[in-house]
Amino acid sequence: MHIAEVRLTPVAIPDKPLLNCKGVHQPYALRTIIELICNDGTVGLGESYGSIKALAGLRQAAPALVGLDPFHLHDLHARVLAAIPEGGGINAKSAVADHKVTDVVTSAFEVPCMDIQGKLLGRPVSDLLGGAVRDRVSFSAYLFFKFAGHIGQPADEWGEVLTPDQMVEEARRFVALHGFKSLKLKGGVLHPDLEIETMLKLREAFPDHPLRIDPNGGWTVETAKYIASRLEGVLEYLEDPVIGMDAMAEVAAATSIPLATNMIVLEFDQIAEAYRKRAVKIVLSDHHYWGGMRAATHLGRLCQALELGVSMHSNSHLGITLTAMAHVAAATPNLSYDCDTHYPWTGIDVLEGDVFAFRDGALAVPKGPGLGVVLDQAKVAKLAGLYEAGAERDDTAYMKKFDPHYERRVPRW
Amino acid sequence: MHIAEVRLTPVAIPDKPLLNCKGVHQPYALRTIIELICNDGTVGLGESYGSIKALAGLRQAAPALVGLDPFHLHDLHARVLAAIPEGGGINAKSAVADHKVTDVVTSAFEVPCMDIQGKLLGRPVSDLLGGAVRDRVSFSAYLFFKFAGHIGQPADEWGEVLTPDQMVEEARRFVALHGFKSLKLKGGVLHPDLEIETMLKLREAFPDHPLRIDPNGGWTVETAKYIASRLEGVLEYLEDPVIGMDAMAEVAAATSIPLATNMIVLEFDQIAEAYRKRAVKIVLSDHHYWGGMRAATHLGRLCQALELGVSMHSNSHLGITLTAMAHVAAATPNLSYDCDTHYPWTGIDVLEGDVFAFRDGALAVPKGPGLGVVLDQAKVAKLAGLYEAGAERDDTAYMKKFDPHYERRVPRW
Ligand SMILES: [Mg+2]
Ligand SMILES: [Mg+2]
Repeated sequence: MHIAEVRLTPVAIPDKPLLNCKGVHQPYALRTIIELICNDGTVGLGESYGSIKALAGLRQAAPALVGLDPFHLHDLHARVLAAIPEGGGINAKSAVADHKVTDVVTSAFEVPCMDIQGKLLGRPVSDLLGGAVRDRVSFSAYLFFKFAGHIGQPADEWGEVLTPDQMVEEARRFVALHGFKSLKLKGGVLHPDLEIETMLKLREAFPDHPLRIDPNGGWTVETAKYIASRLEGVLEYLEDPVIGMDAMAEVAAATSIPLATNMIVLEFDQIAEAYRKRAVKIVLSDHHYWGGMRAATHLGRLCQALELGVSMHSNSHLGITLTAMAHVAAATPNLSYDCDTHYPWTGIDVLEGDVFAFRDGALAVPKGPGLGVVLDQAKVAKLAGLYEAGAERDDTAYMKKFDPHYERRVPRW
Repeated sequence: MHIAEVRLTPVAIPDKPLLNCKGVHQPYALRTIIELICNDGTVGLGESYGSIKALAGLRQAAPALVGLDPFHLHDLHARVLAAIPEGGGINAKSAVADHKVTDVVTSAFEVPCMDIQGKLLGRPVSDLLGGAVRDRVSFSAYLFFKFAGHIGQPADEWGEVLTPDQMVEEARRFVALHGFKSLKLKGGVLHPDLEIETMLKLREAFPDHPLRIDPNGGWTVETAKYIASRLEGVLEYLEDPVIGMDAMAEVAAATSIPLATNMIVLEFDQIAEAYRKRAVKIVLSDHHYWGGMRAATHLGRLCQALELGVSMHSNSHLGITLTAMAHVAAATPNLSYDCDTHYPWTGIDVLEGDVFAFRDGALAVPKGPGLGVVLDQAKVAKLAGLYEAGAERDDTAYMKKFDPHYERRVPRW
């Protein structure tokens, strides 16, 4: 039993003009669909980034996977390391060391290996991760300020959301549609006082919903301390208010609000420093770069041992990712926060059947073999047709089309 | 698919009069053989402690396992926690919190669950742990000072080993028989100067063998510092020279020799303190109390993240334990030290076929489904016949039979 073929299909997902501290989402978000085909015909599915760097890494490593036993995940990692030595000169994230792309590529191939394992066994992937501790995984509403529509397009169904009151309205619609029980705001967009006002108005409108805000490091330490002081007792956690381990530690020391991160603790090697410096209390897990689904369960156990909380990070994604997240979350006992997901913003998928529906903000963990999902090749072909070779995410460049005077500044406020 | 029956068989293994800082091994070491029988007839094998406390915990929790899906290991842990709340009043180790026995019991049942999983899949357990990174697992010679024979018995084939020169001879025989490439001395037995002399003579006789000594906390901090100063550059690591986290940290600060432990870091909750206090550089893994084989791989990943080394602890044991150790070690990339094992001291087993043979100090990881071993019920019956109900290990009581004036003192030196 071994992998005989690797199929990589970059796709583009229609996206909304969602704002963050670096700009605005372009009309398409990019992903790569991964199919590992075994010599016995078993197919494992995966989904990863569609960036030029990630795609280059995936393509460079793919030939090394032929012959791999899909149970030999340590071997997978070794093959990827050998295929893209020093990260192949490709950094998945500019801020991160060279080996990061190897984590991304290993992760991308690990998920289809786990899918294959589950299919061979006739059991859901969660059973290979110690078993599900919950049948349903809860997600948080992911709220974004946004423009009414894309350049040259009419307003989309969500319209413009650029004020605290419009955000409360967006949240009401999200909760009404999906039943989410917690709310996360992508911050760093408006003036800090307006974002404070937004959180306070959300608190008023949703007195029982845990609230989070994530400005992606868009604030200075001073601004972050000010915002934290205004939101004491309001936030469940404050995510990446500032950039850098020491800056995070400084903010952490100044507030009782727990800090969470998917920006300063991205790999196992960074946990010790964060722990020593008390920089964060919650690590956002993400099987796309932590090394895969098994690695994500290691991360869960590690965080438990260090008395760190675990939540889950998301990028714009399709249903393969959503399903993998659900299996990991179901099999991580101490993943006690609602997970992030961009899924409701796109409402499109590449799988057989309807798009996934959240009920009471939660998703039922699929019970079928493996990830429990089946690719619909016609849907893949459609989204692959939207992908343009060499396309790259650039929120700032797109923002300049709305506002030629816009400049990328992190921290912005 | 669920567990329909739990079979627990306490057994006694003929043992040698091996010395440690609390006394001497009795004529029999105690173990429990565990069989989990599924509704489809699949049988999973395990091996754990045979102490009164462990056996009581296993028996108290066993009924709660009926109906368990052998893939649902989180559920296993939950069932054990519920079946022996607060550890059921049973402490596996007096020094450890009440929940420790739940770890022991969970661990004991996890291994047969993994055995079942592997059998269903037709693959070795190591494949369920990410795959083997090595075909052979290396073990260390486990050297003991010893009396010539048991009370009222003639000398055994190893004879008396109570001097440095006799220990060098024991080591020569161990290495000649099994090819071990590293040597571990159970210390805390003779006067520290004699144990220093022993290590120096072993170094002379085996210039290329990594050397370790483990007095089980039998030294004062002052003695430990003295011994460490005399053995700088001689030891691969120094294991539990003293008792207690702070005492270990004090010794660690005084020597360049890495300290290892299986006495102050026994569970995930203790790692953070050890890390903060720099008390140890190497954690000895042991699937019998860390929560099982999967938990042992979590421990490996955690240690890697904290830049701690991982080695492996042993008690007197049979081949089921040895095999489980081999699978865990094979699937733990950073388990880079030779593992401990008492196995060569007993030379008896409960499995079909010959006892395991070490070649060049290493054991081939079984490739058959599950653990890859089959119980020989006649052999089990024989060792079960040697077990006396209510038997308990008491090295000090037995020592008093050799020396009525002997007193248990930890630290002794
Ligand atoms: Mg974030
Ligand atoms: Mg020890």
